[in-house]
Amino acid sequence: MVGRILLLVLFMNAAFLIVNAVPETCPADLGGKCGEDSEWEGEFFPGVTKIKYEGPSSKNPLSYKWYNAEEVILGKKMKDWLRFSVAFWHTFRGTGADPFGAPTKSWPWEDGTNSIAMAKRRMRANFEFLNKLGVDRWCFHDRDIAPDGKTLKETNSNLDEVVALAKELQGDKIRPLWGTAQLFMHPRYMHGAATSSELGVYAYAAAQVKKAMEVTHYLGGENYVFWGGREGYQTLLNTDMERELDHMAKFLEAAAAYKKKIGFNGTLLIEPKPQEPTKHQYDWDAATTLNFLHKYGLLGEFKLNIECNHATLSGHSCHHDLETARINGMLGNIDANTGDPQVGWDTDQFLTDVGEATMIMLSVIRNGGLAPGGFNFDAKLRRESTDVEDLFIAHISGMDTLARGLRNAAKLIEDGSLAELVRKRYSSFDTELGAQIEAGKADFEMLEKKAVEWGEPKVASAKQELAEMIFQSAL
Amino acid sequence: MVGRILLLVLFMNAAFLIVNAVPETCPADLGGKCGEDSEWEGEFFPGVTKIKYEGPSSKNPLSYKWYNAEEVILGKKMKDWLRFSVAFWHTFRGTGADPFGAPTKSWPWEDGTNSIAMAKRRMRANFEFLNKLGVDRWCFHDRDIAPDGKTLKETNSNLDEVVALAKELQGDKIRPLWGTAQLFMHPRYMHGAATSSELGVYAYAAAQVKKAMEVTHYLGGENYVFWGGREGYQTLLNTDMERELDHMAKFLEAAAAYKKKIGFNGTLLIEPKPQEPTKHQYDWDAATTLNFLHKYGLLGEFKLNIECNHATLSGHSCHHDLETARINGMLGNIDANTGDPQVGWDTDQFLTDVGEATMIMLSVIRNGGLAPGGFNFDAKLRRESTDVEDLFIAHISGMDTLARGLRNAAKLIEDGSLAELVRKRYSSFDTELGAQIEAGKADFEMLEKKAVEWGEPKVASAKQELAEMIFQSAL
Amino acid sequence: MVGRILLLVLFMNAAFLIVNAVPETCPADLGGKCGEDSEWEGEFFPGVTKIKYEGPSSKNPLSYKWYNAEEVILGKKMKDWLRFSVAFWHTFRGTGADPFGAPTKSWPWEDGTNSIAMAKRRMRANFEFLNKLGVDRWCFHDRDIAPDGKTLKETNSNLDEVVALAKELQGDKIRPLWGTAQLFMHPRYMHGAATSSELGVYAYAAAQVKKAMEVTHYLGGENYVFWGGREGYQTLLNTDMERELDHMAKFLEAAAAYKKKIGFNGTLLIEPKPQEPTKHQYDWDAATTLNFLHKYGLLGEFKLNIECNHATLSGHSCHHDLETARINGMLGNIDANTGDPQVGWDTDQFLTDVGEATMIMLSVIRNGGLAPGGFNFDAKLRRESTDVEDLFIAHISGMDTLARGLRNAAKLIEDGSLAELVRKRYSSFDTELGAQIEAGKADFEMLEKKAVEWGEPKVASAKQELAEMIFQSAL
Amino acid sequence: MVGRILLLVLFMNAAFLIVNAVPETCPADLGGKCGEDSEWEGEFFPGVTKIKYEGPSSKNPLSYKWYNAEEVILGKKMKDWLRFSVAFWHTFRGTGADPFGAPTKSWPWEDGTNSIAMAKRRMRANFEFLNKLGVDRWCFHDRDIAPDGKTLKETNSNLDEVVALAKELQGDKIRPLWGTAQLFMHPRYMHGAATSSELGVYAYAAAQVKKAMEVTHYLGGENYVFWGGREGYQTLLNTDMERELDHMAKFLEAAAAYKKKIGFNGTLLIEPKPQEPTKHQYDWDAATTLNFLHKYGLLGEFKLNIECNHATLSGHSCHHDLETARINGMLGNIDANTGDPQVGWDTDQFLTDVGEATMIMLSVIRNGGLAPGGFNFDAKLRRESTDVEDLFIAHISGMDTLARGLRNAAKLIEDGSLAELVRKRYSSFDTELGAQIEAGKADFEMLEKKAVEWGEPKVASAKQELAEMIFQSAL
Repeated sequence: MVGRILLLVLFMNAAFLIVNAVPETCPADLGGKCGEDSEWEGEFFPGVTKIKYEGPSSKNPLSYKWYNAEEVILGKKMKDWLRFSVAFWHTFRGTGADPFGAPTKSWPWEDGTNSIAMAKRRMRANFEFLNKLGVDRWCFHDRDIAPDGKTLKETNSNLDEVVALAKELQGDKIRPLWGTAQLFMHPRYMHGAATSSELGVYAYAAAQVKKAMEVTHYLGGENYVFWGGREGYQTLLNTDMERELDHMAKFLEAAAAYKKKIGFNGTLLIEPKPQEPTKHQYDWDAATTLNFLHKYGLLGEFKLNIECNHATLSGHSCHHDLETARINGMLGNIDANTGDPQVGWDTDQFLTDVGEATMIMLSVIRNGGLAPGGFNFDAKLRRESTDVEDLFIAHISGMDTLARGLRNAAKLIEDGSLAELVRKRYSSFDTELGAQIEAGKADFEMLEKKAVEWGEPKVASAKQELAEMIFQSAL
Repeated sequence: MVGRILLLVLFMNAAFLIVNAVPETCPADLGGKCGEDSEWEGEFFPGVTKIKYEGPSSKNPLSYKWYNAEEVILGKKMKDWLRFSVAFWHTFRGTGADPFGAPTKSWPWEDGTNSIAMAKRRMRANFEFLNKLGVDRWCFHDRDIAPDGKTLKETNSNLDEVVALAKELQGDKIRPLWGTAQLFMHPRYMHGAATSSELGVYAYAAAQVKKAMEVTHYLGGENYVFWGGREGYQTLLNTDMERELDHMAKFLEAAAAYKKKIGFNGTLLIEPKPQEPTKHQYDWDAATTLNFLHKYGLLGEFKLNIECNHATLSGHSCHHDLETARINGMLGNIDANTGDPQVGWDTDQFLTDVGEATMIMLSVIRNGGLAPGGFNFDAKLRRESTDVEDLFIAHISGMDTLARGLRNAAKLIEDGSLAELVRKRYSSFDTELGAQIEAGKADFEMLEKKAVEWGEPKVASAKQELAEMIFQSAL
Repeated sequence: MVGRILLLVLFMNAAFLIVNAVPETCPADLGGKCGEDSEWEGEFFPGVTKIKYEGPSSKNPLSYKWYNAEEVILGKKMKDWLRFSVAFWHTFRGTGADPFGAPTKSWPWEDGTNSIAMAKRRMRANFEFLNKLGVDRWCFHDRDIAPDGKTLKETNSNLDEVVALAKELQGDKIRPLWGTAQLFMHPRYMHGAATSSELGVYAYAAAQVKKAMEVTHYLGGENYVFWGGREGYQTLLNTDMERELDHMAKFLEAAAAYKKKIGFNGTLLIEPKPQEPTKHQYDWDAATTLNFLHKYGLLGEFKLNIECNHATLSGHSCHHDLETARINGMLGNIDANTGDPQVGWDTDQFLTDVGEATMIMLSVIRNGGLAPGGFNFDAKLRRESTDVEDLFIAHISGMDTLARGLRNAAKLIEDGSLAELVRKRYSSFDTELGAQIEAGKADFEMLEKKAVEWGEPKVASAKQELAEMIFQSAL
Repeated sequence: MVGRILLLVLFMNAAFLIVNAVPETCPADLGGKCGEDSEWEGEFFPGVTKIKYEGPSSKNPLSYKWYNAEEVILGKKMKDWLRFSVAFWHTFRGTGADPFGAPTKSWPWEDGTNSIAMAKRRMRANFEFLNKLGVDRWCFHDRDIAPDGKTLKETNSNLDEVVALAKELQGDKIRPLWGTAQLFMHPRYMHGAATSSELGVYAYAAAQVKKAMEVTHYLGGENYVFWGGREGYQTLLNTDMERELDHMAKFLEAAAAYKKKIGFNGTLLIEPKPQEPTKHQYDWDAATTLNFLHKYGLLGEFKLNIECNHATLSGHSCHHDLETARINGMLGNIDANTGDPQVGWDTDQFLTDVGEATMIMLSVIRNGGLAPGGFNFDAKLRRESTDVEDLFIAHISGMDTLARGLRNAAKLIEDGSLAELVRKRYSSFDTELGAQIEAGKADFEMLEKKAVEWGEPKVASAKQELAEMIFQSAL
């Protein structure tokens, strides 16, 4: 879920912001002090009206060419297949900083502080953004939306104050797709949270998750996510991996118990990632995470949140990790983004590859959709994209790509020839002996007898090139 | 286990061999027809006498500098910690062919055929090699050691004939570390063996494993290995991954049942590899394989054979995959080799990195050794190494490296400061509350109370550089 | 240029071929002995008629949906932009063997030998294939098309015999896009050809290139290619890299001299690849190869043949290496294929990604086309694709993908908004001072004065998301 | 040169520092306000005395076990072979921040500001560190050592003030190995410096390099480095690569001219890196950078600064890129660090692999040393290493590793058998015909004649395993 989040409190340096007047709207010319007053309720994106569907021939960057929310595809509205969500952190706390560079964004509503007033203003910007985009869901970390206080109590109280405003702004329609706790940025978590070598940190993390879960529940969130960004190691030389994994299991067990206790019915999701910031993250990929859940008897309590860029970093196609989750009944949510195939870190780009999007949507359709999960845009503007309108363009482009993927996947399914090619490949198992094998009733002696009787088996072409041709034709 | 095995029957082309006289010994000058007669029992390596331990200051390439079989380290003889095995395929069937090149080896005992006579002569060379090296174990695939016949029956009978000779040559001392079936080279297995889309291939594979297991048992093998080189996919577009995984589980279940039926007490081992020749191999890495075993209820029947080069191809250090297997109680055997960190395929080189070897031996010592498993040299000469003596040099170098790793690991353990550094890191859990957490008795409410009470937790330095300094000092 | 070519003489094992009758056509039911007689001139692909353009809505796999040879795009016929070529080695000598597996193809015209008769029959099949596909160019290695003899003289005479037939079959229309010498498969080349540590091998390679160049010239070839598959190293420990590079330069210099001597006007092309089979190939990527040519003063004599799968293996996008070649005036030819982004070796797949194809065609259009170079399909059927028709499907799919890329690139160019976005980004240099800088007339003192005068520079958004949106809209 | 430098002004958050008293020494218990007064000249590292050589058997982490500065190896003192330098940025400005985490370091002398007073105090700490370590060289970026002002003029004046102190503290013995300008962190450089799309940025960068070069000259620096962290692209879609490269050439040309103008005799060094933060950096690796210098006629003006972690990120071994630079006469300096072979980003770890260090030192010895370049520790503490003593331990460990590498390399050279193995491999070229070939006097016709005359060439074993055995024996 989390891309390269950066320390915006600290990064938001006055040097980069020139702020000197309060208009009623908040134009992106850097000359307005819009929103300096926290109670200010003017317009943050005055240059942008509600984004509409205009069809593939439109040249308007601020329109949908493929995403038509109410249009029905394969018996379901596009918006119900796609269940889009905006990630608060990337969109409203992303600063453009990277390991070699300072922040580059200077949104007109930011005042360079991490005050509660600023947090509330930002929350208003978020809801204006959601409404203009026509997206009904959002995702957040606790620390994105409200500032740390001096004590945990004060921090929680800050959070409550901002959350109350969010609840009001959500209205009837908007809800969190999921909430989560940020357990990786603060130095206390440098050795991990649930897997920290320090017991005090384990306890602190428990307190933080407890609160984040309460808040998500209060806001009507449909899921709750665990991304163990620091649950892993930098070197095995100083690490007791076995003990750390045991701690992680106990932590998740306690989280599941607490969920039940407060009556939160949302799905608990674990988000795999192979590495970064750690050299090894314990939830490396879908299969590794499933093994962990099996080992500790936690399988029934969790599902997976698959992020495409994390899947590719772990050496798999995104489609592979989606299918791995799906066939294990564990596909809960998708963090929709993409990486660069020649780059070895998480770039969290908006997905714009139509072929990839079509593969993803094939998995989603086979899964019967993702609800109560959805597609969270865990994707960020490039550091060099600094216009306010770029926030809209990026989301529109990502939404249109997945919408196009859905249309293509539907075409493939309606055409049927790809599915038929696969069915035929395995048809030798659609026989009596096939059924016996699949029921575990064919022992080696029986099979040897058959092998001797039959002689050399016939093996048909796999028709990969034909399958690729059919797939490409649908794009 | 399997490196880039190549098709030597076919590759062993007369053009590369000039064969014209029968000496009693078999010198590597390419001028001898040594072994042309299958009953010939002369010396294959006349230039090499039994390899002896001469200590680190020796300049003799044909001596051990670090491996002293009978020397006791940490209470056990070196040979019992290391339990070395020679891989028949690389050493006696490796041709030097690669995807862009023809075979380069022309061992004097080879006659360019894949006859039974040739198979027997080669088996004699194998045992002379083992004896001169002072290694008591060997590993093989069924098809390495005996040629295919026209029918399965004929193939099995060829195998029996060569195995009878192997049994005789083994004598009292030498045994297979493990045997296995070659289920990847023949075109019938192009879509997989247990996961082939063709039922007839599934049956054929069952018959082949049945026989290979019988033969391993007959020779006194201590383990039996499954490497699913073709159990995976090239593209998901034409693949029913769920059905294939179900088939694989049924196959392994039937194998475990057959093992019991014939009274074979060896360990069944699965060898993970991420890819190559397939784009995705189902047994991707240790964790993925464990998840599979969990899902299908097969955990009690199998252990893992970890190959270092496979671990690094899957994005892990070798040490990581060893530790993953170990802490799950599943470390059964090691395929001792190494890859090139800048190369994206399996190079199956002999391990010569002493630091890496020390890490490996730390895992082995923590595991209490590997028995009944051991270290199989799944490693091959470089294509360009074409002298008979290179076979000895490579094995000696690999054995010495692991022996040196064992000595270093023992030094580290006896010194104790690295272990103490790790123990101290986690000491906050060696408390009453720590015990409660580890027993699953610390719920989120209790932990939150503690977190509030304690305030900001103290977090100590991880001392990675100190740990690295201690580690390096032992090398 | 070269994918994983495999040793078919040796691989073409009678066990995999059942050959027993001579029909006038050569159907792919494995029952025909078609072509057993070398003079046989029947039909090799009786089931396939000439492939026609049927447009995007066609469901016929054996038709073009996007490639319409005579259609004019941006002022030039599609066939002139694309200049397709079939690679003889993959299409007619590819066996499906891989490092873990035996050959899988058993084309009905193959008789399991590497005789001259077989070579001629295969050549007839090649020309029928070209004609049915409607492709006017082909590429070959010397050793693909004719068998080795016992001596170089005999080998050359074999080559002459087959080449004479090829010349006849070419007629007026068909020509080699390029020829080349196979300097990597034979064991004599295991340490390299021009960079071998053995002088005798250097001389042998010179003789082989001399002949291959003569033959290419005789057949009317338009280019001649050098792929240094073994010109590199496996380890620096035993390698004198400096001396090897010097030898390579002398070799290429002599080749350029010989080209002029025989009046061959074709372009000499070097094909970069980072590694495989070597750990390091000296012609790592476009920039590395250009550096070599600069250093040895060979820049005027050579151009580059960029292979997409090689570019991605070297850590670049294909588009990057094409642009690197292009802006250095060195883009001579494209080996059109693709790899798998999660796989670390050369898979030589047919390119089916339309986005990638569009990027490629943008480079080609900016280059004003590729002539006298073209697009060689250095791509092969998957090992598991064993139907004769798969050869057609694969080529059609690859050709259609590039044709679609051409159409999309034309759309982008005609629309103009992407080019305009780029032009505007750099417009501050379209000024007087910009011109001075670009002319090398702006020294640091003058620039410092300006910097002080201007104060903090304004920096505009890079609009990457907008550029991606525009690009995707054209697909 | 530059690792993941982070924005410490902004990061140095009061929350992480508790500062309240002024002792005469500056102990690392976080309770002291040591250094709050900028003129304070007490002891920063009271717990550490001058590091001494104690030999390999010492267990004292704060001693050298292998580095004995005055000891003569191969005719030169160890300190003259190694010419170590401390990197100011990592050691004194590294905060422990990463893309997912806030700073973790809270050195007792830091007060959380980026004031000039703080800059001076930090500079005193630097020189105490150098002196205690016994290192005579340091490296810096302009912006590491002094804060930005509101204008370029003010910034330059800040720099002058701190530089004056540095000059004083340097005394007779200590000098910069090199200085450089930080052209990547400030948002103005987000599109590059010399390759920015904005002319104003190009000018600003020129002014900054001008000043940095002057300052380096003033301090007696021996080299000046260019690392083009932002000279590259994120996507080719919005980039005019050709124009950007032209600008980069003009910029470097002007830099070389200015160097001469001010009489600075230091070497200008370019530091390659393949990517990060950009998707593609123009100075990808040694060969790419050399090609650029060739193309623009700049070869005589520059040498290369090879960083090991950058070499491995570009797909090469460190040894490879060192040798590439060396045999082109371009090896000027080494940034001594290492990456993690399983990690796709720059980790800038201290090198602790003795084998790797031995390879590096082989290149350095062949190069006749590095002077006027040296070894800069472009390496940083792990984020989780937070004790002041960790700074010493890390440097000692890195220095000892290279010292051990030097001792091993000397052993190999004195033994001579590895060099002899290589010499023999190429001995067929140490002949009359070999000399003709190497002089460019052997044309293809002459060579063909020889090839026919000689018949099939003999090809000897490459003896890689033997070479590895010899190499390992020296460790």
